[in-house]
Amino acid sequence: MRQICVIGLGLFGSHLAENLTALGCEVLAVDKDKEKVNAIRDKVVQAVTMDVRDRKALESVVPKSVDAVVVSLGESVEASIMCTLHLKNMGIPYIVAKAISQDHKAILEAVGAHKVLFPERDMARRTARTLLNPNFLEYLPLPGGYRVDKVETPKSFHGKTLKDLDLRNRFGIMVLAVEPADKGKTVFLPPADYTVKKGDTLFVAGKSKEMDALEKGKG
Amino acid sequence: MRQICVIGLGLFGSHLAENLTALGCEVLAVDKDKEKVNAIRDKVVQAVTMDVRDRKALESVVPKSVDAVVVSLGESVEASIMCTLHLKNMGIPYIVAKAISQDHKAILEAVGAHKVLFPERDMARRTARTLLNPNFLEYLPLPGGYRVDKVETPKSFHGKTLKDLDLRNRFGIMVLAVEPADKGKTVFLPPADYTVKKGDTLFVAGKSKEMDALEKGKG
Repeated sequence: MRQICVIGLGLFGSHLAENLTALGCEVLAVDKDKEKVNAIRDKVVQAVTMDVRDRKALESVVPKSVDAVVVSLGESVEASIMCTLHLKNMGIPYIVAKAISQDHKAILEAVGAHKVLFPERDMARRTARTLLNPNFLEYLPLPGGYRVDKVETPKSFHGKTLKDLDLRNRFGIMVLAVEPADKGKTVFLPPADYTVKKGDTLFVAGKSKEMDALEKGKG
Repeated sequence: MRQICVIGLGLFGSHLAENLTALGCEVLAVDKDKEKVNAIRDKVVQAVTMDVRDRKALESVVPKSVDAVVVSLGESVEASIMCTLHLKNMGIPYIVAKAISQDHKAILEAVGAHKVLFPERDMARRTARTLLNPNFLEYLPLPGGYRVDKVETPKSFHGKTLKDLDLRNRFGIMVLAVEPADKGKTVFLPPADYTVKKGDTLFVAGKSKEMDALEKGKG
């Protein structure tokens, strides 16, 4: 996924466009506010001022070859719905939309969003906890090269305990949680004698390189 | 910390006010926009419409006994700075302010903010990574009762290896990272033979109850 269009350049949308560019994407940034478009012009491949409720305008600007479009028009509910509908009808393969409520989410999904985000709600939840417990981390400060992934267990893992697998010492990978095959309750910080079953999903943290190997079933 | 004032009821501020209420705080919600104030009225102890750049108005509304004030006026840079300055002069013990840039952060700190947040920037960074790697987690879904904490190592830990301490089996606590005493590079997913030194800070995940015990040095 390399060519991404970000529609709506509020705080979240503009930071997203910048981050995607930094991660190597060709970003097309769109907003109806000229000032916001000008502010981001130098940080993306292309920046365009337009009314995203207008399908013809959208079609003339968003290339058919785009890998994904992010609709970050949370507070403009009508515009976000209209825009998502147009994008769906245009055949955009992956539409991510920002919502401000569950109703908004339901509509966005009904008109074609593949993924709905609640960035402000999610950050607010974490911030509230941090305020009440200053030790509580909003998130773990992952250094460069590390990531947290959700991976299905490769066949070679089945029937073995986490101790047998010894991922920490063999690959520098830590199992933070297990979502059991039977979709039962997620086991957070699983004990060393947890036996991995077919269909279990592991939440693992580690270096990107080693995680890629794990995902390819080489782990 | 129980009585908290949230100033600025955009998406982040309003969700924060709701979350703080849900966590048992008495929340006073403030915005200059009547509609936003009305929308949150039933979800907080008190909701007030006012111009937060006006010190007299602020003094008449924010009680001196408040534990903390969160200034969530990111996009209104001038208002967020003025409001933070007034709150500092009023002697508010803990001021958290939202910023939209490093310059904004520097000014907020200069006028008295104790903590500066970048919620949209932080979420955008995570979302960008998730978009490019759908397996990448925005954050680990911590179940109720669990949390991630940053704790200074109790004296009883010094000179011992993580293997010796065996926190996982003794307390169900996992050490995710170590910030060394010498403020050197954080060791992410530290090896079992890492020897804990005086002044080391541990990033640990576990159940709240056991974490409290650890922090009291009983671990």
